[in-house]
Order: sequence, then C-alpha cells, then structure tokens
Amino acid sequence: MALKCTRKQNYPEWYQNVISQADMAENSVSTGCMVIKAWGYGIWERVQHVLDEQIKETGHENYYFPMFIPLSFFQKEADHVEGFAKEMAVVTHSRLTNESGKLTPSSPLDEPLIVRPTSETIIADSFSKWVKSYRDLPILLNQWANVVRWEMRPRLFLRTREFLWQEGHTVHANAKEAENETIKMLNVYKKVSEEALAMPVLSGRKPEHEKFPGAIDTYCIEAMMQDGKALQAGTSHFLGQNFARSADIKFVNQNNEQEYAYTTSWGVSTRLIGGVIMSHADDEGMVVPPHIAPNQIVFIPLIKKNDDADKVMTYIQKIQEQLKKQTSFNEKIRIKVDTRDKSSVDKVWEWVRKGAPIVCEVGMRDVENEALMVKERIFFGKQEGKKIISAADFVSSVGQRLETLQHMMFLKAKKRLEDNIRTDIKTPEDFARYFAQSNEWIEDEQQGKVAFVRGKWCGDPASEEILKSMKITIRCIPSDQSGTSGKCLLTGKDATLDVIYARSY
Amino acid sequence: MALKCTRKQNYPEWYQNVISQADMAENSVSTGCMVIKAWGYGIWERVQHVLDEQIKETGHENYYFPMFIPLSFFQKEADHVEGFAKEMAVVTHSRLTNESGKLTPSSPLDEPLIVRPTSETIIADSFSKWVKSYRDLPILLNQWANVVRWEMRPRLFLRTREFLWQEGHTVHANAKEAENETIKMLNVYKKVSEEALAMPVLSGRKPEHEKFPGAIDTYCIEAMMQDGKALQAGTSHFLGQNFARSADIKFVNQNNEQEYAYTTSWGVSTRLIGGVIMSHADDEGMVVPPHIAPNQIVFIPLIKKNDDADKVMTYIQKIQEQLKKQTSFNEKIRIKVDTRDKSSVDKVWEWVRKGAPIVCEVGMRDVENEALMVKERIFFGKQEGKKIISAADFVSSVGQRLETLQHMMFLKAKKRLEDNIRTDIKTPEDFARYFAQSNEWIEDEQQGKVAFVRGKWCGDPASEEILKSMKITIRCIPSDQSGTSGKCLLTGKDATLDVIYARSY
Repeated sequence: MALKCTRKQNYPEWYQNVISQADMAENSVSTGCMVIKAWGYGIWERVQHVLDEQIKETGHENYYFPMFIPLSFFQKEADHVEGFAKEMAVVTHSRLTNESGKLTPSSPLDEPLIVRPTSETIIADSFSKWVKSYRDLPILLNQWANVVRWEMRPRLFLRTREFLWQEGHTVHANAKEAENETIKMLNVYKKVSEEALAMPVLSGRKPEHEKFPGAIDTYCIEAMMQDGKALQAGTSHFLGQNFARSADIKFVNQNNEQEYAYTTSWGVSTRLIGGVIMSHADDEGMVVPPHIAPNQIVFIPLIKKNDDADKVMTYIQKIQEQLKKQTSFNEKIRIKVDTRDKSSVDKVWEWVRKGAPIVCEVGMRDVENEALMVKERIFFGKQEGKKIISAADFVSSVGQRLETLQHMMFLKAKKRLEDNIRTDIKTPEDFARYFAQSNEWIEDEQQGKVAFVRGKWCGDPASEEILKSMKITIRCIPSDQSGTSGKCLLTGKDATLDVIYARSY
Repeated sequence: MALKCTRKQNYPEWYQNVISQADMAENSVSTGCMVIKAWGYGIWERVQHVLDEQIKETGHENYYFPMFIPLSFFQKEADHVEGFAKEMAVVTHSRLTNESGKLTPSSPLDEPLIVRPTSETIIADSFSKWVKSYRDLPILLNQWANVVRWEMRPRLFLRTREFLWQEGHTVHANAKEAENETIKMLNVYKKVSEEALAMPVLSGRKPEHEKFPGAIDTYCIEAMMQDGKALQAGTSHFLGQNFARSADIKFVNQNNEQEYAYTTSWGVSTRLIGGVIMSHADDEGMVVPPHIAPNQIVFIPLIKKNDDADKVMTYIQKIQEQLKKQTSFNEKIRIKVDTRDKSSVDKVWEWVRKGAPIVCEVGMRDVENEALMVKERIFFGKQEGKKIISAADFVSSVGQRLETLQHMMFLKAKKRLEDNIRTDIKTPEDFARYFAQSNEWIEDEQQGKVAFVRGKWCGDPASEEILKSMKITIRCIPSDQSGTSGKCLLTGKDATLDVIYARSY
C-alpha cells in the first residue's frame, strides 16, 4: 500500500501516514497517549543506547526517582508551578470500590500526588538530603523515565500526554561549573543528534519568555523539518540557585560557609523520533539513519520454486555469518532475514515503508552468481539505488557502506538547513511579508520557501505580542553572535541580538 | 562504618542496612516509593541487559503502551478487577488551580484513569484491533515499564508502590502454543535467575488461590532467602481465552471460523534485586554476582607519597588497558578506578559494603613487583580472599576468575536451597510443630532451621484457612511430581499432589 499522500499534497497527513505505514506507533484508546510499536520502539532503543553511552562517558550515573510527586512540592517554586500547573495529571485516590456493579474511586489521599511532568522538585528534595559539603559535589545523575503533560492537541511522537525521555540533574559548588555542565550536555545532544540521528541542529540560548519554568538560562538544539518549521529537539537548563533555594540544597563551601548549591537539568525525549521522521522520510515512507536502525540490513529471499528454498536460505545464512563479523559505527551489524509467509513484493514494500537502510533481495540467480541485489533506501527510485554486488564485495564493504549512507543523510539535511536560513531580511515589513506565507514542503535543493530567518531582535517584551499574533517564535539566540547592530525585525527598534525566527512544532 | 547488625541479630534490619550501606536505594518522601541509586540501578541495568537479550532471542519485540488505563477497562474482566481494585492509583484531574495561594486539583476527567498495576487490559485492547486472522499470530511482545500497586507495607525492592519491571504479552492461535510460551518464558526466568543472578529457584505452578487474577494457570519461580523464606521471583501466566473474551480478541482460524485467541503474560521486576541481596549479601554488606555487577573490578590506588602517585596511576592504567581486551560472560569487563579524594581505607570498606566482586589495591610495592593485591569479595575475612598475584597472571585469568566466582556463589546458594527443603515431614502435627518456629538466618552448611517443606496437599479449599492461620503459603506445585499418595500436611486427608510450603516475602 502506498502512502496516502505526498509531502507536497498534505504535509501533516503525510507525517501521520509515514508513522502508520512504517508501523512505528499509533494513537491509543487512552486519550492523548500513544502505543509505540516495535519499529518505533526499536529506534528509541538505539537512540537510548547511543545517548546513554555519552551520558555515562561524561561522568553521569543512572538513578530512578518516584513518578509520584507530592502536590506540596510544586508549591515551593513559584515559576515552576506557573509553568506546569495547567497540564498535570493528579492522583487523588488509591482504591476502587464496587458500588452496585460500578467501579468508583475510593480511599482519597491526604495529599494529592502529581504524575511527574519533570522531576526537578522531587530530585531536588533528595539532593537537599545528600549534599552537606563541597566534598559531596558535584552530583551528576540521569534518569530514563516516562513523564506526563496534559497536552490538548496531541500528535504522535511530537506531543503526547505521556512520553519517554531522559532527564539529567546535577548539583555543583559554583555557578561556573554548573554553567559549563549545561553547555557540555547541550553539546552532547548536538553530537548525538547530528552523528546518530543525522539531524543537523542549531544551538543557542532561549529568550527570556521561552525559558524552562524556574531556570536562569535555557539552552536548546533546534532542527529544521522538511516543511521549514523548527523542532526543539533538546534542552539544557542552568537553574542557578533557584531550585536549591526552594528545596534547601545547602552545602558548606571551602571557606566553611553555608551556601546554596547550583543545579542544572537537561532532557531529550521520544520527540526526537518525530524529528528523525520529518528530517529524513520521503514520499515512499520512513527512512531510518543506519546508526539508529533496529535492522540495518534486511534479506528478502526470492523463491520461485520450492526446490530453490534450501539453496537460497543456505546462501543467505552464509552471507549473514560473514556479516556478523563486520562492524559499523563500532558495533555489530544488525541483520534481519525476513522469512515470513508473505509475497516477496509485499515484503520489499514493507521495508521501503519502514525505511530499513539496506534491503538485499536474494534469488537463485544471485546464488549462482555469488551476488546480491542491494537496494539502498535513500536512493529509492533512482538508478544508483539498486545494484547487483558480489557477495564478497558486499561483506567487505558493508561497514563503510552504512556509514557512508548515514553521512549522506546528514549532509542532505544539513544542506537543507543551511540553504533555508534567510539572513537578508532586514525590515519588519519584509519580515511580515515573508511570514505571511504558509509553511510548505521544501524540495531538495529548493530555496525561497518559508523556513528560518536569522535577524535582529530588540528583546522588548512588547515584541512578544507581535510574535504571538504572527504565530512565530524565537527559536534561539545562537552562540555565534555577529555583534553588529541593526533594526529589530519585530519592532523596528535598534537591536544588536541575532536570533533565529521560525514557525515551530 | 560497619553494618548495624548481623543477619543473626536482626535479619530484617540487616536487609535494610545492607541496602543503605551499599547506597543502592532509599525510601522516598513520596510515600511507599523508593529512590533507586546508582549502584542499585546499575545492577538493574545489568539484569535488564541479560534478560532483554533472552527475550529478544526467543522472538519477542519491545513495545511501549500508555501507563494510564481508562477505568472502564477494569470493569471488563471480573476476576482481574477483584485482584487489583484494592491497590490502584487513580488519576481524576488534569490540572491544578491556584486558589488563594493553595494549589487545588481542577479540570476533573470524564472518566478516571488508573495508573497501570499491570497492562493486560490495555494491551488486550490493542490486540483486539491488530488480530484479524491466524496469519497475524502469534504476536510476541514485551515492555519495560514502571507499574503501581498501592502497597500498605512497603519495603525497598521487595514491595514498593511504584516498581520497575518487564511484562511480556503474547497472543496465539491455540491453547497448546500459548501454554508452551508460558513455560518457555518461565524457563527463561529460571535461566536468567540462576545464571546471571546466581540465584537458584524452584519452578512450578501456583495453586488455584494464588493465581494471577484472570489467569487459567500461573507458573512461578521461587527462591529461598537466607532466612528460609521464599521469594516469588517471577511469574508466567497462561490466560487462556479469558482476556480475549473480555477484550474481544477474535481471529479467523484455518477452518475459516471466528475464534477467541489465547494469551499469555509474564513478568519480573526490581524485586529480583531484593532476591539477590537476600541470596548473597553477608554480615559485611552486599555481595554482587559478577555477571550483574555494575563494576566487576575496582582499583584502589594506595599512595603514601605524592611522588608515587604518577607511577601508581600509570601502572593501573596499563593493567586497565590490558583488562579491556579481556572478556567475561562474553562481554567486556567492567572496571572502575576509584580516584576519589578519600582515604584508601574508606574506599576499600565502601566497596566491601557495595559488594564489588574483585577489589585490587595497588601501591608502590606492587608497581615494583609487577603485581597486585587482589581481594575477592565472596571470601571476605578468609585467607584465600586476599592474595598477591602477578599483573600478567591476573590479566590472563580475569575472565575465568569472574566466572568462577559467579559459579561458586550459585553453588553456595544452591546448596542452601537443597539442604533446606524438608521432605521428611509427613503429618499435620509434625508440620504444625515445624512451622510453630520462627524463621531465622540459616548459616552456611546449616540445616534444621525453618525453611521449605515439600509434602502433600489435598487441594481442599478448607486447607486455605489453615494456611492463613499459620501464616504460611503454598509456593508452588513443582513440575516433578512424585505421583505417590500420602496425607495432606494441612488437613490430614488423602492427597497425591506434592507442593512446596514456606513462609514468604
């Protein structure tokens, strides 16, 4: 079955359709939540694997904290409350009673519990008990968990009421060290996003009004989707002493004085998978970067006569054994032999829709020629995407081949990003004219559609109203500031700050 | 700091103390929940790794389902409701409102949501949509998740309101295949428990009154703790067509008839870590089996003069590089060099309490002799537990050494289990006399304390009352039935069924 529509015809519908045709996830009967299916979860497992390695290499250890947070904890940090109160799942009872056949909540709790929207408050409480002296610092921890935010307009992977993520939380003895940690983890996110997800990102600081509730500074990575909209793909927060003050995380410093500690937090979520889809999928369906593909190579036996079956399967197994000795991205290669009782044409299309990086079709002719038909997903429909290669050559080149495909995916996405950041818009009038247009799919090598604008911002609170009315946002204040002055693209006032403007998910 | 008490002095307090001294977990301010700290979570990550590999090798794929289950789903399966209604966390609101400074739940939900105590009902709903024909079967899936049961007497790892687990769920076209699946996964649990956790288990079927709510048959693995009590370490359920009927999981079979499908479910949880503690820890603290130790080898530099520091550290790094090329349990060896700014004596004790399998102390004398002081945790306090080994010998033997330590831990626990199953109790009087005694710590090689009794059971519902009054339970009906007849140890009636009786966690 083909996709219902192309990116050009209906981009939002195309997105949903890619997910369902690749069998990655679906909407659950539990409203606003999703069921993540094997192919989608397999991609998440790969993302977890790569990121977890980086988190550990940078000195963090995994912990697990309760998902139920006493309501009173949210009362402590005013900004934090403001930010999250509107979207919290509240547990109020601990039992069900059968009232004439109807189950009814009973045993009301003395204090309602909040299902964590994020764990700053409850982890800060632990920190307050664990930290006594500068010798206990830094504490560098992370947790992999589910979190809940009561989204009213849920969308698979991008915004669901429950989602999966990791949240890092650290405590430091001084502001400088905590700020360095914030930037360090932002860079880890950038690295994983670009290297494993092949998704180029811009990084920078959020403007005041886009900060995490309770943070001093929020840093982010922002990716450009194929329709020119921005996707916030990860955030890293310098919390200063805000949470330390509200949770009483104090320590005795080297001068023997009591001082509030400095904390950070940082997270990425299953939303990244939405980013991967909208960075790489095409009009045939999903395209998974080899580094995070649950199966990098899929074999499809083409068996015309029953007599051939044994020979073809033996041949595939022989190649599979040889492939198992190869590596790619410093890991074993993940291979699947699709032996299901289904027509091979259906199987081929299924793997196209799922976006497995390489599909090898093997029939008797290949057995006789000691060769393989190798189809590389990113070249679908093009001559170079389909070639007969000798088995020996395929085995010896497979690691490099997967890494090259990954790199090509990254370069393509990077070109799209770089080609579609407008820097020549200098007046509010031109800016308004530009964003009066709707976002549409940006074809390869295409320019001139609505995407990102890099330009000046005065920082004036009044400018936020203009943003709202135009339904655009400031994605970040990039670290590479030009230092020049110019006119704010919103208010026309004098301004020196360079920011990235875009519509966003 | 030493443990507060020995196993003999106060077994329950010893248990809590092992956990806190090893810094594995602690009680959370979120009542009944725990904070799993790095060393405890690291063990869980290892258990997950080993088990996940087995789950995938047996053909299952990981999915993720929502943790919120609509209340009405529980209404469908009557037995299931009965079993879980008493311990459910109920979400009733989706927002907080600030009412004169006090946060108050608002936006009540149309239908309350249950935080999953287990996911049969919501997964069955997905199955009902996915299954149309026998060609869609079997479906073999698993999920790693947090679940909630409102325990009133929580205890770290053994019983907490929120815990982490995996739950497998499968659908089959016939009863036989589903039963085979149930047994297959029981055997996977037995294998992982015995091979990775070094925790021997008995396996068998649960009696009717101990079955999972809604199951046709529940199978289990049961371990013996050092105080002779049983710990249910994993369960595997044959659900027959019960959940298929209540959730309407129907398929067209090969005869072109509509039929209800057959489902199974199976799970193990962070409770396993409690089992590992009470199987292996000693009066000095935790003892972690090498297969699941977050760090298998810990180096502690002994530096007397500052001048020596470089030499000692260079020497350790050299050995570490060589160790990285070795494998144990078919994996890379997990090494930690403890360079914290702390006295080496404190460090040594800390790793004793944590139960790292091998601690290597390295000072200048060792550098000069190209040797190491190797301390093996399971031999703590014994002569053979502390030896100087040449660095070359240590490197070449390390893989085997860790595997041998693992095997010795298993054999020791297995001997305790086998030595403490009484089979000579034949009358209700002797049985009552035996269980009139309290459980106490069973020293190595010791027999005669209260532990397990293998004997007859008539299966009479009246016998359940006797069990309750004696505060003992039937742990399982072992698969190796003797087939002989005798007298029920509870009622004195004629009986043929062999069962395992014990007190339990």
